Amino acid sequence: MLKIGPYTFQSRLMLGTGKFSSTTIQSEAVKASETEILTFALRRVDLDSPEPSFLEQLKGGDFRFLPNTAGAKTAEEAVRLARLAKASKLSDMVKVEVIGNEDTLLPDPVETLKATRQLVEEGFIVLPYTSDDPVLAKRLEEAGAHAVMPGASPIGSGQGILNPLYLKILIQQTSVPVIVDAGIGSPADAAQAMELGADGILLNTAVSGAEDPVRMAQAMMLAVKAGRLGYEAGRISKKETASASSPKEGLVN
Amino acid sequence: MLKIGPYTFQSRLMLGTGKFSSTTIQSEAVKASETEILTFALRRVDLDSPEPSFLEQLKGGDFRFLPNTAGAKTAEEAVRLARLAKASKLSDMVKVEVIGNEDTLLPDPVETLKATRQLVEEGFIVLPYTSDDPVLAKRLEEAGAHAVMPGASPIGSGQGILNPLYLKILIQQTSVPVIVDAGIGSPADAAQAMELGADGILLNTAVSGAEDPVRMAQAMMLAVKAGRLGYEAGRISKKETASASSPKEGLVN
Amino acid sequence: MLKIGPYTFQSRLMLGTGKFSSTTIQSEAVKASETEILTFALRRVDLDSPEPSFLEQLKGGDFRFLPNTAGAKTAEEAVRLARLAKASKLSDMVKVEVIGNEDTLLPDPVETLKATRQLVEEGFIVLPYTSDDPVLAKRLEEAGAHAVMPGASPIGSGQGILNPLYLKILIQQTSVPVIVDAGIGSPADAAQAMELGADGILLNTAVSGAEDPVRMAQAMMLAVKAGRLGYEAGRISKKETASASSPKEGLVN
Amino acid sequence: MLKIGPYTFQSRLMLGTGKFSSTTIQSEAVKASETEILTFALRRVDLDSPEPSFLEQLKGGDFRFLPNTAGAKTAEEAVRLARLAKASKLSDMVKVEVIGNEDTLLPDPVETLKATRQLVEEGFIVLPYTSDDPVLAKRLEEAGAHAVMPGASPIGSGQGILNPLYLKILIQQTSVPVIVDAGIGSPADAAQAMELGADGILLNTAVSGAEDPVRMAQAMMLAVKAGRLGYEAGRISKKETASASSPKEGLVN
Repeated sequence: MLKIGPYTFQSRLMLGTGKFSSTTIQSEAVKASETEILTFALRRVDLDSPEPSFLEQLKGGDFRFLPNTAGAKTAEEAVRLARLAKASKLSDMVKVEVIGNEDTLLPDPVETLKATRQLVEEGFIVLPYTSDDPVLAKRLEEAGAHAVMPGASPIGSGQGILNPLYLKILIQQTSVPVIVDAGIGSPADAAQAMELGADGILLNTAVSGAEDPVRMAQAMMLAVKAGRLGYEAGRISKKETASASSPKEGLVN
Repeated sequence: MLKIGPYTFQSRLMLGTGKFSSTTIQSEAVKASETEILTFALRRVDLDSPEPSFLEQLKGGDFRFLPNTAGAKTAEEAVRLARLAKASKLSDMVKVEVIGNEDTLLPDPVETLKATRQLVEEGFIVLPYTSDDPVLAKRLEEAGAHAVMPGASPIGSGQGILNPLYLKILIQQTSVPVIVDAGIGSPADAAQAMELGADGILLNTAVSGAEDPVRMAQAMMLAVKAGRLGYEAGRISKKETASASSPKEGLVN
Repeated sequence: MLKIGPYTFQSRLMLGTGKFSSTTIQSEAVKASETEILTFALRRVDLDSPEPSFLEQLKGGDFRFLPNTAGAKTAEEAVRLARLAKASKLSDMVKVEVIGNEDTLLPDPVETLKATRQLVEEGFIVLPYTSDDPVLAKRLEEAGAHAVMPGASPIGSGQGILNPLYLKILIQQTSVPVIVDAGIGSPADAAQAMELGADGILLNTAVSGAEDPVRMAQAMMLAVKAGRLGYEAGRISKKETASASSPKEGLVN
Repeated sequence: MLKIGPYTFQSRLMLGTGKFSSTTIQSEAVKASETEILTFALRRVDLDSPEPSFLEQLKGGDFRFLPNTAGAKTAEEAVRLARLAKASKLSDMVKVEVIGNEDTLLPDPVETLKATRQLVEEGFIVLPYTSDDPVLAKRLEEAGAHAVMPGASPIGSGQGILNPLYLKILIQQTSVPVIVDAGIGSPADAAQAMELGADGILLNTAVSGAEDPVRMAQAMMLAVKAGRLGYEAGRISKKETASASSPKEGLVN
């Protein structure tokens, strides 16, 4: 069970709603993913209408929304976007996304920390998108973040986990949930993140950009479960030398 | 559906039966894995008794047995072991395993090819354990092998796929099924192998050596399915630069 | 030629002076490295004596000193250490090192930025030790840093470059010199960093901790040159498929 | 000093002569590389003229020639090419190259072993191009090969060392010299191979295909020396945790 702030979830997979080729495919992919948390960019939503049209498409399910502040380049912009979301009763959860560079879409560490601090103070449930720097994750936790969302690699790049060691250290040193966000390209990447001890995964492009998004959503759902079970089951350690699985004598035959 | 020689299987996961701490755990792990093919070393089996005791433990399921020639250092020894298996009506499938080095347990390419040729001639369904060399896999296929079983890394090492490129090339250039055998350590490794296009996975130590073998068996079962679905779903390509998942405008909001 | 602030250097290799088993070996390693910049922790130096004893050992050469603020956990502590160094006329260059975690010795991004800003204002030549985060490196540059020193992996770990992609992006997006600091374990690591476009390397443990530190210092000196030349020479691009080096026909035979 | 059969060499870098854009650049690159061994495809040489024209270009130096059997697809073809080379007094050394696949140019293990055995019997100094399979390398050594030449990755691919573990094992288990051949793309790759314990490197495309082949040849020459020295100097072991290079107290300061 994943707990973020006051909320609990059975699923450890969060899905972004962007860039699907049709609302039908989006809706089927969401269903196949078994996700309970949907994310979307606040700037894309018409906040004057109390319930955005694309969210209506997903009405069948019982989702919690995690709007993000994509497009913000400063803490101030992120905070402003988050306040609008709250005012429109969309959600009191927010993914803080303050981009530091347009080409890489990597987060700005200082502005992200500043926005996190401010939004925590204002009573939001705050999940900042951050780098894989374990120290910065700790600072975000100290600032009151309810979870941290380190990127595996640049948003939409599909490169998987570029630095598994730092991600593992970050997970070990962070007390709030760690949701690996950005860069996951395939089910194996998702499983690997979970095996490192991540509490959850956020995906978008890897599903929406697949040739068959619905099948990929199902694959990711299974991979997150597989990785989590693998983490709990305690994997064998790696050895340079071989070790016969067929002993000459053994307890079992 | 996996087809090897005249046989078809729903499951793409084969499980070795060695080194479990008890027959109960072995049996539960086998069940959790949903495997239909069990492997074991012929030298461990008392071939005078028509049904070996450890196989009796697994009677509940409907398994096909894939005995291996572990311990053989020459084609001659492997052939002799395989003939005994057939004589005892245990199975007409055989995993040819001719070890070329005691420390690494890596296969001997020349003797493996020789044993494969001989056993194919004698009417066996032959699955040779081989390196990740695409050329050798092709030679084994030409010799009549019904599937090839390249190692991801040394047996029992848990190092995962050391050379994904050669494994991918091997899979692309081989027409018979490719079962990745040896070295898989975690669900992510299993998913990765399936995403490269493997037709199946053979595991033993990664399950039997896990802290909780039954849970790991379940994790592996899910990972193989996730990886296969991911392969079929067509993953996004990797990019060095980022790509926003929240477009400023888009079909679906 | 490497330019940092007002200074220019022929060598692109900086050497730390800690943990050598004897001053003789230290001195010979320094010589073999052909370095022109030596670093050391300010807390190790008796700043009351105008010329520290261990620096006297190195008198033969014409070195510039780059004292670091190792041990500092806040910007304030780092600034205080740097001021002492300047007051004792040791150097006006300083490597800002503000550690955010005792186990990993990874830098604190916020305090590092703060200390950098302050020391630049006070007229120091400032080289902050930082993570491989390209955005943070840019912020340090904007704060006036004269060079940035991203870690390849944790200090003294010898793990090499954990995230070559981010290091490459960092180098491309940073206008001041980039000196890869921390984590280099072998000559190949040093060459790789230089091939990614780094302006220089700072080493300590990889040399002082080698079985033969003097020989390793020479190896590193050659590797830095090799990597730099390789960078300048423009390497071939990587291809998945093979490409014969022996064409059937060709200009040159 | 590198010893292969009866010959000794100061340089551990062998250079292929193919695909240079001009004989001038080829000649300068050869000089910058400090190589003592030049390789070329026998099929490219007019063996009726006792001294091939392109070899004349290189007359200034004192080189030993290592002709290869590129183009051969069977042991028989390789043996025939080698005999022609010997008959024309070009060299009694031969690099056995029997390709098993036109796309990957990976070697055929069985035919390579067969050709090696035959040519050893006929008195050649035989260096077979082989995969990174440690068992096959051992079989080649047992067949009398005077050195083995495992590929790091496909010929001309510039992918570097795809499987450092198997290359390391191969080097440890092989008694004759190991020359890493094929796939090296940059100086860091060359240094890495040497650090794994290789006795030498053979390069072609990485130099001839570089933007500045002469400078790259020099870079490779330095990298091979750096890697060899690094190997001899005994690198530090890798650690997951950090280790301060600035101890609070220490022998030296």
